[in-house]
Amino acid sequence: MTKQKDTKTVKGDQTKTLILETALEMFQERGYNETTMRAVAQKAGVSLGNAYYYFHSKEHLIQAFYQRMQDSHLAAALPALESEKTLKARLLTMMRTKMETMEPYHQFAGVLFKTAANPDSPLNPFSDETDPVRDASIQLFAQALDGEKIRIPKDLRAELPYLLWVYSMGVVLFWIHDRSPKHRRTFRLLDHTVDLLDKLIHLASNPFMRPLRKQALRLVQEIKEALPDGDEHE
Amino acid sequence: MTKQKDTKTVKGDQTKTLILETALEMFQERGYNETTMRAVAQKAGVSLGNAYYYFHSKEHLIQAFYQRMQDSHLAAALPALESEKTLKARLLTMMRTKMETMEPYHQFAGVLFKTAANPDSPLNPFSDETDPVRDASIQLFAQALDGEKIRIPKDLRAELPYLLWVYSMGVVLFWIHDRSPKHRRTFRLLDHTVDLLDKLIHLASNPFMRPLRKQALRLVQEIKEALPDGDEHE
Repeated sequence: MTKQKDTKTVKGDQTKTLILETALEMFQERGYNETTMRAVAQKAGVSLGNAYYYFHSKEHLIQAFYQRMQDSHLAAALPALESEKTLKARLLTMMRTKMETMEPYHQFAGVLFKTAANPDSPLNPFSDETDPVRDASIQLFAQALDGEKIRIPKDLRAELPYLLWVYSMGVVLFWIHDRSPKHRRTFRLLDHTVDLLDKLIHLASNPFMRPLRKQALRLVQEIKEALPDGDEHE
Repeated sequence: MTKQKDTKTVKGDQTKTLILETALEMFQERGYNETTMRAVAQKAGVSLGNAYYYFHSKEHLIQAFYQRMQDSHLAAALPALESEKTLKARLLTMMRTKMETMEPYHQFAGVLFKTAANPDSPLNPFSDETDPVRDASIQLFAQALDGEKIRIPKDLRAELPYLLWVYSMGVVLFWIHDRSPKHRRTFRLLDHTVDLLDKLIHLASNPFMRPLRKQALRLVQEIKEALPDGDEHE
């Protein structure tokens, strides 16, 4: 580690990025379980201690990857949302920018999925460990719902960002297994699901639907509480 | 292998059951990947050739397990359905008998899940290899919808058995991770989801909902076609 104060942060960021990039490349080539921190450090040309200084474990490398995806999505979505006023257009913008951000990592996402699909894995998107990135993503969906033309009842609005995040995880799952050219199938699915979601949200916002909506939202709450993370709040 | 004709089938069935029981026990104790066919044969007291005669691979043991669960569910559900006339009561009966059938295998289901959750695994409930059991389960849901008091439009009725099967897979996933005493949480979830499903099916059956229903069913079709099995029919 460099001890020179001025350049320390910049150099640290560079080293951190280098380690992350190297690790992602190796995970993609060899698989997650087959790649050791030692091998990552060696290939990145840093000491093992240095690698562990930036990433306490292999899992932290994946968390950093999730975080980077989330940052990129935020950077792409916010300006794109500015010109969209309707719920449908805003949801579509959210989902398209998300998938475009992830596109370069399609192969790696497939490798990662084999590990992360297990709900007991700390790499699972529903796990405690992925909390901060999940919360940031849910927060972004909440912002997408804040268009001026959008009227959604309070109870639904409170849960919708989370439900949209779950939906987005479903789309990512579809995309991981999508072998169509340029993943056109995923983008077609986006168009069709967002169109339907828009209609369903409008339907659920109708005063006549209040009892059914309340019941469905209670059920969402019940399922959320049963998730590992939910137990804390019981 | 015995060559005596009269008792061959009975003895064969017994041997087959013995091998399956032994394998399930060992999978549960050691894990699926850690158990070899050789070890199963040895513990069951049969030759390796004999074990392979009945089960061509470890995967076939799991398929046999799925098949047995399905047979037990059928045997429990059919008589119970006879006295139930409403959609809600019939769905509840279907789901309760399903979970009761699986109850003794809760621990094993957890072990199995770690392997089967990967969509590329032939043990995944959506894979080609699990076709016959999945079809039998979907068929059973179709029978549950055939109550005399139940009116569901044709288009929805055609897809509903499949959708209910997907729902039941979701419940199984919840149950696998349910650590509440006697899995009460799962049974409570059943009550609440079936109640909501019943209302949603009635809502979707309303003539006013026709356009939205058609659109949702087209989307279901699109997603089904994207699943590995769906490709064949394209």
